[in-house]
Amino acid sequence: MSTQLDHVSVVKKSNIYFDGKCVSHTVLFADGSKKTVGVIFPSALTFNTGAPETMEIVAGRCRVRLAGQDAWHHYEGGQQFDVPGDSRFDIETLDTLDYVCHFG
Amino acid sequence: MSTQLDHVSVVKKSNIYFDGKCVSHTVLFADGSKKTVGVIFPSALTFNTGAPETMEIVAGRCRVRLAGQDAWHHYEGGQQFDVPGDSRFDIETLDTLDYVCHFG
Repeated sequence: MSTQLDHVSVVKKSNIYFDGKCVSHTVLFADGSKKTVGVIFPSALTFNTGAPETMEIVAGRCRVRLAGQDAWHHYEGGQQFDVPGDSRFDIETLDTLDYVCHFG
Repeated sequence: MSTQLDHVSVVKKSNIYFDGKCVSHTVLFADGSKKTVGVIFPSALTFNTGAPETMEIVAGRCRVRLAGQDAWHHYEGGQQFDVPGDSRFDIETLDTLDYVCHFG
């Protein structure tokens, strides 16, 4: 997994969710696509998706339960998981996460 | 002031300081220079500088006291201030700051 996103623009203003438990910056690509690069502090949160997402965990540790599933799955730095569009997932962050969210 | 940094790379792993009160991502330019784009949550912090810095306040509100000065100066979105190298500054963040730190 690469350690950086190349040939991009970064929006200076951040996206802050859940009272600062999640902080991200939007990264724009030349083809018009975007990703977000961010942090989730230890917490138990539920995220809703619009487009399908791939959550790339850069560092940290969490467990995740997708909508309609009973099982929690553990993920840590170097792993990733997919979330369908128009859905949601519960995420319990155990060690602060660095992540990249890929859309579509 | 532009709303984004163009033609850059973004390091995926964040820089977290002061127990998460400050979160930034490193942005690399083709000429080898770098900046950081980040957030400071409401807090009273002291930052040390290595290289001289220009702190561009994108959004939010703070007051700042440079080393060796008695006076506090207020800054908000759209303003910036300079800090000498090998120095420090006290910053009291009143409304969560989005900032870009320019080095050198």
